[in-house]
Amino acid sequence: MNIVLAAKEEFIGNRLRLADRRAEHIVKILKNKEGDTVKVGQIDGPKGIGVITKIQLCYPFSVELDTALTEPTEPRPLIDLILALPRPIMLRRILSQVAALGVGTIFLINSNRVEKSFWQATVLEQDEYRDHLLRGLEQAVATRVPEVQMHPRFRPFVEDYFGPLAVLYAQRLLAHPGLPSIAEGGKKEQGRVVLAIGPEGGWVDYEVEKFKALGFCTFSLGTRILKVDTAVVAAHARLSCMLDLDGKNA
Amino acid sequence: MNIVLAAKEEFIGNRLRLADRRAEHIVKILKNKEGDTVKVGQIDGPKGIGVITKIQLCYPFSVELDTALTEPTEPRPLIDLILALPRPIMLRRILSQVAALGVGTIFLINSNRVEKSFWQATVLEQDEYRDHLLRGLEQAVATRVPEVQMHPRFRPFVEDYFGPLAVLYAQRLLAHPGLPSIAEGGKKEQGRVVLAIGPEGGWVDYEVEKFKALGFCTFSLGTRILKVDTAVVAAHARLSCMLDLDGKNA
Repeated sequence: MNIVLAAKEEFIGNRLRLADRRAEHIVKILKNKEGDTVKVGQIDGPKGIGVITKIQLCYPFSVELDTALTEPTEPRPLIDLILALPRPIMLRRILSQVAALGVGTIFLINSNRVEKSFWQATVLEQDEYRDHLLRGLEQAVATRVPEVQMHPRFRPFVEDYFGPLAVLYAQRLLAHPGLPSIAEGGKKEQGRVVLAIGPEGGWVDYEVEKFKALGFCTFSLGTRILKVDTAVVAAHARLSCMLDLDGKNA
Repeated sequence: MNIVLAAKEEFIGNRLRLADRRAEHIVKILKNKEGDTVKVGQIDGPKGIGVITKIQLCYPFSVELDTALTEPTEPRPLIDLILALPRPIMLRRILSQVAALGVGTIFLINSNRVEKSFWQATVLEQDEYRDHLLRGLEQAVATRVPEVQMHPRFRPFVEDYFGPLAVLYAQRLLAHPGLPSIAEGGKKEQGRVVLAIGPEGGWVDYEVEKFKALGFCTFSLGTRILKVDTAVVAAHARLSCMLDLDGKNA
């Protein structure tokens, strides 16, 4: 936990009182004392620092802080992610990793090779997926929670829902093995980017065609077959690299 | 398991007999039958296909294959990794992920912020770390096992051991927060690349200076603080992106 995140309604003026795992983390892991300063952020809001004014060191732990959130809310990350719903254990890891890396919206969608049972996973309940996202933000010292959307039917998503949105993206990229690498994918365009990553075993041809019809370019991360969590991080990093280069070229 | 990997001495001519977790995986997960074809590779050698000639479907599982390894051994990946020894649970994940992504040598080294107890972890025993590497290769359909070296003392590694090697690398990159991004790090040079990634909390100043003295350029993956496993994958991907671009520019 590299920043303490709290919801807007937890602040009373500049004062913040914690009495849950965050307080326990400050006491037991960070071993902070009264008078110490920690990074504090308002979820989906500004960040800054907090001075610890009071600590209860024995169970139940509690910590009180005087905060000064002077850094403006970070801009929404430029990358959105369309992800064929992965198995729950992998989704948990991906949620915290992409929250740490920075994404705007995560569209969890169905695909031919997604196991139906994955749609019953508890990680799709808001309390649980939000917790994984917050842990990623706490790691990365960021405050903006990615939006999560679930679309358990492929065709209504790609035709009715995403169709009208697709044109808003300067780049639409579909990860697919064995096709030209990302470096060739129209990298000079500015603006938001959407990245679609398939299930284990990949998208089926029908799905690839549907995405192509919406202007998606396919790209490959190389000849090696990666697990979905590795592929998500690698694709995000390659894309960030391209966007950095674009920014410098612009 | 996207390829069956076996050591050279397991092959009798073109015939291969499996009676361990690989056979169990073929029977229970892949559900292959006699006459089916699977991908087969010789560890650190060529790859190709194998036709299943005999399956014992009940415990203890065994599978016999006639193989034809016609694809040449892949070249050694261009990227080597210097990694401050991470906690064991994270090292396991990193080993299989970097084997999947492709690295030549992994130098596991000490650093001021590495906990001493990590050097006692069972994952540093060859049987165990090799297993994680092989699982990464099985995922990625690759055969070349990364070399793993352990250097439990920082200064002898950086001064005596790595000093003479450093000049062999066209690029030497040190991940360090808040400094210029990788895109600026002399990206036009060809040849092998070594990437150094620090512990949780980062390298200390002394360590950064030692690496700089060996010609390492520092780079940052951005303002967000990433977990070591996320950082390794992201840095590898950014570097691969740059190497691809170089290849195309060359």
